Amino acid sequence: MIEGGSVTSPRGFRAGAVYAGIKTAGEGKLDVALLASDRPCAAAAMFTRSSVKGAPVLVSQEHVRDGRAQAIVVNAGIANVAMGETGMAHAREMCALAAAKLGVAPADVLVGSTGVIGKRLPMEKVRDGIARIGLHPDGGHAFARAIMTTDTRPKTLAVRFGCNGRDFAIGAAAKGSGMIHPDMATMFCFLTTDAPVDPTFLRDALRDAVDDSLNMISVDNDTSTSDTVAILANGATGGETIDASHACAAAFAAALHQVCVGVARMLARDGEGAEKLIEVRVEGAASQADARAAARTISASPLVKTAVHGNDPNWGRLLMAVGRSGARIDLARAHVWLGGTQVFAGEPLAYDEQAASDELRREEVLLRIDLGCGGEAATAWGCDMTPEYVHINSDYTT
Amino acid sequence: MIEGGSVTSPRGFRAGAVYAGIKTAGEGKLDVALLASDRPCAAAAMFTRSSVKGAPVLVSQEHVRDGRAQAIVVNAGIANVAMGETGMAHAREMCALAAAKLGVAPADVLVGSTGVIGKRLPMEKVRDGIARIGLHPDGGHAFARAIMTTDTRPKTLAVRFGCNGRDFAIGAAAKGSGMIHPDMATMFCFLTTDAPVDPTFLRDALRDAVDDSLNMISVDNDTSTSDTVAILANGATGGETIDASHACAAAFAAALHQVCVGVARMLARDGEGAEKLIEVRVEGAASQADARAAARTISASPLVKTAVHGNDPNWGRLLMAVGRSGARIDLARAHVWLGGTQVFAGEPLAYDEQAASDELRREEVLLRIDLGCGGEAATAWGCDMTPEYVHINSDYTT
Repeated sequence: MIEGGSVTSPRGFRAGAVYAGIKTAGEGKLDVALLASDRPCAAAAMFTRSSVKGAPVLVSQEHVRDGRAQAIVVNAGIANVAMGETGMAHAREMCALAAAKLGVAPADVLVGSTGVIGKRLPMEKVRDGIARIGLHPDGGHAFARAIMTTDTRPKTLAVRFGCNGRDFAIGAAAKGSGMIHPDMATMFCFLTTDAPVDPTFLRDALRDAVDDSLNMISVDNDTSTSDTVAILANGATGGETIDASHACAAAFAAALHQVCVGVARMLARDGEGAEKLIEVRVEGAASQADARAAARTISASPLVKTAVHGNDPNWGRLLMAVGRSGARIDLARAHVWLGGTQVFAGEPLAYDEQAASDELRREEVLLRIDLGCGGEAATAWGCDMTPEYVHINSDYTT
Repeated sequence: MIEGGSVTSPRGFRAGAVYAGIKTAGEGKLDVALLASDRPCAAAAMFTRSSVKGAPVLVSQEHVRDGRAQAIVVNAGIANVAMGETGMAHAREMCALAAAKLGVAPADVLVGSTGVIGKRLPMEKVRDGIARIGLHPDGGHAFARAIMTTDTRPKTLAVRFGCNGRDFAIGAAAKGSGMIHPDMATMFCFLTTDAPVDPTFLRDALRDAVDDSLNMISVDNDTSTSDTVAILANGATGGETIDASHACAAAFAAALHQVCVGVARMLARDGEGAEKLIEVRVEGAASQADARAAARTISASPLVKTAVHGNDPNWGRLLMAVGRSGARIDLARAHVWLGGTQVFAGEPLAYDEQAASDELRREEVLLRIDLGCGGEAATAWGCDMTPEYVHINSDYTT
């Protein structure tokens, strides 16, 4: 982990952001951001599986198809979704403006927008904003602040990994926040690395890392119109291109995995209104799919989240969530723990209710269940559900 | 609709309830209830699709398999789930106790338990309670009160329908309440009729009615460990047995449909913490499955529910929910209305925000969307999400 690391920790990346007036004004607010590499990059990205995709998602899908990109332009405040041809034109124009500023092709720019749906982007402000952005080798934190919506803090981190005598970095900037109930949270995670990575391997490594991390804070079809994860690999540190058979492949994949899990935990912890991070470990599953489904369903369950909020050791809700997930469970062989306190072993155990409640009182709550059916396991992350969640979402546009 | 109607409105049914001490004490509380016909009945039932089923569900499935039953015994306060062989023995004993009291076979008694999971039923209290129950021809309201958990009011109704010169009734007692977010709500709906109905037709008519009503307040696999819908048809009013080809089949099915929709609306309106009933109408869907999925996903979305709570005309969340449901939508041909105010017609419309907000201020809020893809339609029901929902669920067991 690099202290104070960000998307500009890897060599050859610069970033910057300005306040263009898309978000309502506020001290230190930023809402248009640009991230750029000083040379072409291998690129890979994953997008929302929603059948209603925002215009920026459609344009970015097109631009990343060739496995190459060099910059990412983002605004927060308005999501540019459901705006028809106008929305597509605006997303393309954002790419063109960033491209002209950087002297690259518009097709090498990815674009993201997050915020309210069904409002028109004020393009005069966006144009002015992009023109005013200054790019800096330490601009990663400004970039992370600019992409926030209801996030209470920017999410940025970076790690180093060594291989073949070289010292590479991977950096991340992310936003989430509607994650307390994953449906419709808009999640952005932008990643950079100075390692030289083959585009096909980059895509596969990204998918694997995201499946164990960002996809474990969001139930499958519970994705917003705008969810985007993208990585740019510019190779600025030099060395041979890393593909799946390269000696550095495992080190790169492990570092990417570490970054993505770190981001997932940050996103879950800063869920709207959240006071606690919940980690759900499912073991003893008959299949990997069962393990994931059970872990995600528990972590997403409002009844589990509210019980954790109230320090209520109502562990029956974990079994209910497993039942709802469709995962196979053999109740006679199943085990359930709240933190270190076991509460079920084929049948309910006598346990110290105060000790169990204290397990839920921590800032990081661990819920663990053995389904008693096999050897597969998975981990998911969520947060507690608080009255503040309802307050935040009751008057988002007004 | 029969004024003040209940499960004892149809001829030949009696019911009663007592306070046995399973729920925490409170004025006028009841927690063990019995419903019985004075003669054998055709019976049909539908149960939770959860992979973790309560013992009462497993026993009732066994008892209804022959299409016959004569009584239903229920307790509230403890759900008798995840209790292993002990739980099965307790559910069987509840049937046996009711059967002995009524002079019928245990296999002709259905059983339901609702409340906390993973706690042992205090059988001495249950035995004493069942022994003390007095059955009355107007006991339907006591029965409905006894099956409540966090419900704020009992749910009971009955309708009449005439056919072939006879006057039949269908009655209902239901409980729900965790319906604000459908997952894990335990829903009971017990139905009675004095019409003579063929068991196969009864099963099919029940499934059709439930698919359009109770299943439209609950996302498919979002069912609790204990959900139960059961109907007893005792034929006390006489006449020929009604099967699918009988002249009265359509009248019976229509009346059953009316009762189930009435119950669905009652359950949604009394969702935990709810202040408003939300009705979601989806039109223009490419398939019936799409229409149902879109309507259910909108009605279950926390972001839609919180927006309605805050009278916030944030209609973009409806499009997000449709996208998440996987239903096909043609945005260029789609239309969205909040009550009578249209806000989207292929693109966002200029609309009066105050008027739209006022549409959400009603006790019954109508959300309507045309997917622009075909001729199929569906209706779902939900309720707004309030801070009170979180409060209720943060300290359920403590």
